[in-house]
Amino acid sequence: MTTAGSARRRYAVLSGGYGGARFLQGLLHLLGPDAEVTVVANTADDMWVHGLKVCPDLDTVMYTLGGGLDTERGWGRRDESWLIKEELAAYQVEPTWFGLGDRDVATHLVRTQMLEAGYPLSAVTDALCRRWDPGVRLLPMSDDRVETHIAVDDPQSPSGRRVVHFQEYWVRLRAAVPARAVVVVGLDRATPAPGVVEAIRAADVVLLPPSNPVVSIGTVLGVSGVREALREGPAPVVGLSPIVAGRHVRGMAAQLLTTLGVDVSAAGVAEHYGARSRGGVLDGWLVDTADVGSVARLEEAGIRSAAVPLMMTGVEETAAMARAALELVGP
Amino acid sequence: MTTAGSARRRYAVLSGGYGGARFLQGLLHLLGPDAEVTVVANTADDMWVHGLKVCPDLDTVMYTLGGGLDTERGWGRRDESWLIKEELAAYQVEPTWFGLGDRDVATHLVRTQMLEAGYPLSAVTDALCRRWDPGVRLLPMSDDRVETHIAVDDPQSPSGRRVVHFQEYWVRLRAAVPARAVVVVGLDRATPAPGVVEAIRAADVVLLPPSNPVVSIGTVLGVSGVREALREGPAPVVGLSPIVAGRHVRGMAAQLLTTLGVDVSAAGVAEHYGARSRGGVLDGWLVDTADVGSVARLEEAGIRSAAVPLMMTGVEETAAMARAALELVGP
Repeated sequence: MTTAGSARRRYAVLSGGYGGARFLQGLLHLLGPDAEVTVVANTADDMWVHGLKVCPDLDTVMYTLGGGLDTERGWGRRDESWLIKEELAAYQVEPTWFGLGDRDVATHLVRTQMLEAGYPLSAVTDALCRRWDPGVRLLPMSDDRVETHIAVDDPQSPSGRRVVHFQEYWVRLRAAVPARAVVVVGLDRATPAPGVVEAIRAADVVLLPPSNPVVSIGTVLGVSGVREALREGPAPVVGLSPIVAGRHVRGMAAQLLTTLGVDVSAAGVAEHYGARSRGGVLDGWLVDTADVGSVARLEEAGIRSAAVPLMMTGVEETAAMARAALELVGP
Repeated sequence: MTTAGSARRRYAVLSGGYGGARFLQGLLHLLGPDAEVTVVANTADDMWVHGLKVCPDLDTVMYTLGGGLDTERGWGRRDESWLIKEELAAYQVEPTWFGLGDRDVATHLVRTQMLEAGYPLSAVTDALCRRWDPGVRLLPMSDDRVETHIAVDDPQSPSGRRVVHFQEYWVRLRAAVPARAVVVVGLDRATPAPGVVEAIRAADVVLLPPSNPVVSIGTVLGVSGVREALREGPAPVVGLSPIVAGRHVRGMAAQLLTTLGVDVSAAGVAEHYGARSRGGVLDGWLVDTADVGSVARLEEAGIRSAAVPLMMTGVEETAAMARAALELVGP
């Protein structure tokens, strides 16, 4: 006989890269080994480069939870070296702005070879995770190729615009020029990877970490069936604001929210996701104490809200954030 | 008006890896910058591994003449590191016996991406050589895929035999088990790369360095049209024995010659190639002073011969070997 108390609680987490991975560290610290956590990671940052399939968000989650991340840099492998980057530059092979570390390349070689042998990305991710043992079930949002492209100004182009891969916008252009449009190529035809919809529907709680609401969580939500699973599933959906006091904590969310015409604020992002009771996806939304003034506005918009410190300065602090999120929508 | 004295002399060299590359260093040292040297390199050692196209002989020639070879090890890049190998082992990805250095991987990434974009191997080799500036025109023997496979004993197999890639025979099995057969897959359908036949026909001299007569020079000669170009071209063809006093200087020529039923001796290899006047390819054949006794036998077989020291201990010694070879068939 299984009682509610003895059953393992199930969590589904939609994730980008660094923010999602850091949040998951705190969540796992809070929950301990008995929880079942499924992570649905954004793959719209993925890029084919130098003939290799690179999946930054999947790898950041895998490396972070598997103890392989360079925590100083926030991406890639620790104890990394850069000989391949140096060699590719000597061969004058583009792109030179996207640096692949030597250890990291091994991951991409394994992935690329498996993809070219016909395995879907979800199976490849599962195989890579056998080494890293991240303590979660890590799923790509989709096995289909999806790529976020950003339109930027280009006076040299007849149209005045140029479209670059998200990685080029972020890594080469450092998100320092206006993003005129965000085009997620392939998203309209992408189907969820095996297990994605099932994990959301089977979850006791769905969490949206403080990841980028446009190019991370936004693309996951854009995969056919994911938004419906959140809206129609039995689990409450609770998110944590990546915007604190009108600025993103890390990354380039502010620029892209502006492009979409979304108010760059904790409340603005929550309203962009929308209240589940009113056709959106959120039941609850944590804001930082700096944004305590938006709690009332959110409650009015049908989203349960509370203000707590949202800086992921350490695993204990992050676990406290996760606890506050769970409590916000808890029984 | 062009006189014989002022015209640049043209040399065509059929080459394997280490032996060919070392010989070419000596030849270039002897000839100086005014000679035109075209190298036709064996590609039957090539291997797809971890999704990368690896061309050991082309790369050994390119790295050696471009100053990038690890001269201690005799293959791969100097100042090399092995993080990718370590990572692939951690992923438990086969083959673990074939180690790719990190710097070396960059070459294979550039090559693989160009091949997958549709460029033939000859164009890719040309592109890679722009960086290395080897001082020769380096051509693969063919743009077609050719792979030497070796049949070895396998009591576990119903047939009692197993076929392995040449690299597995050499690197994993260390050529320590009998080679029951040498099968060069694809050689019967391979056509010469652009420029190969033309370079042989336009040469003033064709040289066969002390490379492996079976899996290096032998495969180059097996490409359709190459043997005919040597036989029918105007240039004398002169080779240097890789067998000294009944043993190969380096590698595994002895094992493979035995498999082919060829006498493992300086004269045996020359007779295997055959005198050009009698349907073979050789006009001249240098043997080591240890094999001076075979000079008369070779002269009788229609092959001009001389005995000189054939140990490539340094560039000066190797240049002296090249000089002796040229003098043997010279005017």
